[in-house]
Amino acid sequence: MQSIDLNCDMGEAFGNYPMPNDEILMDYITSANIACGFHAGDPEVMQHTVGMAVKKGVAIGAHPGLPDLQGFGRREMKISANEAYQMTLYQVGALSGFVKAAYSKLHHVKAHGALYNMAAKDVNLAKAIAEAVHDFDSSLILYGLANSEMITWAKKLGLATASEVFADRTYQDDGSLTPRTQSNALITDEQQSISQVLMMVKQQQVISANNKTIGLKAETLCLHGDGAHAVEFAKKINEKLKAEGISIIAPSR
Amino acid sequence: MQSIDLNCDMGEAFGNYPMPNDEILMDYITSANIACGFHAGDPEVMQHTVGMAVKKGVAIGAHPGLPDLQGFGRREMKISANEAYQMTLYQVGALSGFVKAAYSKLHHVKAHGALYNMAAKDVNLAKAIAEAVHDFDSSLILYGLANSEMITWAKKLGLATASEVFADRTYQDDGSLTPRTQSNALITDEQQSISQVLMMVKQQQVISANNKTIGLKAETLCLHGDGAHAVEFAKKINEKLKAEGISIIAPSR
Amino acid sequence: MQSIDLNCDMGEAFGNYPMPNDEILMDYITSANIACGFHAGDPEVMQHTVGMAVKKGVAIGAHPGLPDLQGFGRREMKISANEAYQMTLYQVGALSGFVKAAYSKLHHVKAHGALYNMAAKDVNLAKAIAEAVHDFDSSLILYGLANSEMITWAKKLGLATASEVFADRTYQDDGSLTPRTQSNALITDEQQSISQVLMMVKQQQVISANNKTIGLKAETLCLHGDGAHAVEFAKKINEKLKAEGISIIAPSR
Amino acid sequence: MQSIDLNCDMGEAFGNYPMPNDEILMDYITSANIACGFHAGDPEVMQHTVGMAVKKGVAIGAHPGLPDLQGFGRREMKISANEAYQMTLYQVGALSGFVKAAYSKLHHVKAHGALYNMAAKDVNLAKAIAEAVHDFDSSLILYGLANSEMITWAKKLGLATASEVFADRTYQDDGSLTPRTQSNALITDEQQSISQVLMMVKQQQVISANNKTIGLKAETLCLHGDGAHAVEFAKKINEKLKAEGISIIAPSR
Repeated sequence: MQSIDLNCDMGEAFGNYPMPNDEILMDYITSANIACGFHAGDPEVMQHTVGMAVKKGVAIGAHPGLPDLQGFGRREMKISANEAYQMTLYQVGALSGFVKAAYSKLHHVKAHGALYNMAAKDVNLAKAIAEAVHDFDSSLILYGLANSEMITWAKKLGLATASEVFADRTYQDDGSLTPRTQSNALITDEQQSISQVLMMVKQQQVISANNKTIGLKAETLCLHGDGAHAVEFAKKINEKLKAEGISIIAPSR
Repeated sequence: MQSIDLNCDMGEAFGNYPMPNDEILMDYITSANIACGFHAGDPEVMQHTVGMAVKKGVAIGAHPGLPDLQGFGRREMKISANEAYQMTLYQVGALSGFVKAAYSKLHHVKAHGALYNMAAKDVNLAKAIAEAVHDFDSSLILYGLANSEMITWAKKLGLATASEVFADRTYQDDGSLTPRTQSNALITDEQQSISQVLMMVKQQQVISANNKTIGLKAETLCLHGDGAHAVEFAKKINEKLKAEGISIIAPSR
Repeated sequence: MQSIDLNCDMGEAFGNYPMPNDEILMDYITSANIACGFHAGDPEVMQHTVGMAVKKGVAIGAHPGLPDLQGFGRREMKISANEAYQMTLYQVGALSGFVKAAYSKLHHVKAHGALYNMAAKDVNLAKAIAEAVHDFDSSLILYGLANSEMITWAKKLGLATASEVFADRTYQDDGSLTPRTQSNALITDEQQSISQVLMMVKQQQVISANNKTIGLKAETLCLHGDGAHAVEFAKKINEKLKAEGISIIAPSR
Repeated sequence: MQSIDLNCDMGEAFGNYPMPNDEILMDYITSANIACGFHAGDPEVMQHTVGMAVKKGVAIGAHPGLPDLQGFGRREMKISANEAYQMTLYQVGALSGFVKAAYSKLHHVKAHGALYNMAAKDVNLAKAIAEAVHDFDSSLILYGLANSEMITWAKKLGLATASEVFADRTYQDDGSLTPRTQSNALITDEQQSISQVLMMVKQQQVISANNKTIGLKAETLCLHGDGAHAVEFAKKINEKLKAEGISIIAPSR
């Protein structure tokens, strides 16, 4: 039976600023990437979000980001491999405290925003992040962009991985995402998004922006948590996948 | 054989700002309270300081503080018990990441600055911090001011504790520290400091500012890490204690 | 002709976190207290909010707060008078940059949250904040709680002041606000709020929680900016005041 | 008579972390670039440093940096031109508060670290920073790397500029600094440093790493503030320049 994980960035509230979709989204996803206080999240939000995930049976992941709250971790910073290692270890450790206190177990790690994107291409950052995860707990699963350096280096270290795909992004012939600077980067038609997801999950293939059929490992699908349609789309893709006989389940080691 | 632990706040450098005494002090202490990024310290400093402690065989403790880098965690903040619980858990978790990656084991927790002082007197904060430590790892030892609420509540939860005493502070008849607002709060004469330490360790007593002899549990002595004489005094007290046949050793559960 | 200023805290968005009511509220208020980056706000938000205020002809005030983004400046911190002076001066200066660049003029200063409340009662903090405002620009108007130390000390330094009143808070016999810890602190009935406002504006009196009629200078009314009913209430009070022949206008020196 | 300005980054202490050379260095420099709280500095440090500069008659400049305290503003961040404009305006405004309160006048602006280096080459950032300075106060002098985009754009906006040169860096044939990644980037021999400075000041020329004599406008010389030899070198170059009959004076509009 075919299966896919549905993951979503969670716990990206901060202080006085809420993220009201989080609770509802927990019903449609199987793994939650919980912000760790650098790009979003704070100790109160982390505890609360871990609690919701435990209650809903959603697999808990750490979602470390760059130390840039104002930029939401989306502005690239020139950091060294050591810095990437250290900031990953710090944030994974911090989240693990709340997971332990909730009698649960940390399941995976997924880097956030600019850190995710840089580590997809930069060998040194990919290696550093994978090492931090490995050194913290070698049974954790590392989520990364399908076909990226992040996945390559996690595998080299013996970590379990989950290759991530996107419903609303187009792909290049080499399996990478079309850069957002190009006009055809985003898929705005919902039906087209769903079709792309079904093809990726059922055939492990995607049709590139150039109309080529290319192979693509689809182990976890990234759902967006903010915006007006986030909840609606999460519900729809969840139901559609189930209707197609696809099992929605978090990856296991 | 009598014994005492010598502890010191460590890893309180930040970014471009060094704490040059740290490395040398490691030779004279048996336990290090390592800052966790809220009042001082950053991921790089934490990794480096954990590494030094492991190398020197010094017991590693987390040293959580208030989220106030500019105030060095010394300005009281009106926080709730929940916030105290959450910020302790976050910081202990964060440090534990570096400890795990160094194949070592976290040994104790000691709150910093205003958090330490508030939790010495405030039942709710004391309880919250003790619960955070307990929920993270019930085998950790909680360091707190001798005779304080912190020690009381840690014991109630079944945590091992270490009652902390000071070489350079005078005591009240009830065993509390003379507030810094009073002119006789500090002991500036080195010989008098050493005498007080020896009496506390050997007789578990101290002579109060009012000249009364009072009982005081002395399980760990706090050494200061900054200032010109910090290293010199650490060396001297270490040698003096050994010369008196007192074993210098970190507490065990 | 009677008049009142309607002020509202503005620009309390941060980074990725919006405050969507701000733009609409500008239509109903006459002065905006703009956050300066310590408790909320960031350079982008500040520029944007100043721009909106200029466009709508709303008087621009700086709204300095404690350096506590997670706590939204609402957690009391034990700061010295010097620190209060310095953090006020810093934030007023920072906002003034955007005001200058928009070819406008800074009109007033109102402290935020815990800083506002502490300075209402603490003589040293009140004096320090008034001095910072005076030293920056002695033609600025200082907004403060009616009958508070903040108003007293601003007057002593020769600053123009605006005594602030609240629509949704009850008052004590001495003219102070009923503390939020008491059950009757808040007025939840909208009609009662409006009646209290009209009485304060027209008669410079309020009926205390103990049913006494007391004098109260009402020069500016604080409207809340967040919550579902914020916009609705702002519109209603604005219209009601005008219907009663009361001029809604920002204070002038 | 020939002249040069000696500038130094000042006020880069933070909270508990001192910068002990600052006070002594004020005796040997003519302009101080004072950190504004983003990469270093805090309101207390800013007030204190402005006070020292006023007392010593040193021209006061704002020294805005990237919002990266841990990285000391030295890690490049991908920021937009708008963000560069906003963070410059915010920081210049913040410092100006302390300058006004000290009855002094802001003299210049010099970007810090990665912001300085990025703006030297990136037209959009250079333009944005120059615009922020211009919009705040068009009589301010903008300091920038000699031959850089920063200087070019400041001039285009009609700002007065000061072209900055370095004693301890080698130059390329095009007048740019040899990148630090190259082994010959730094001049470590003190005599060679002094010779380079004298040639730059007296002949407005420098001998490049390739042994070519190239033109270089030398209006202000950057002295380093930290490190063991900082004070010693500042004193020496100050005395040497005077001995050669060169006037040491801050630039004027």
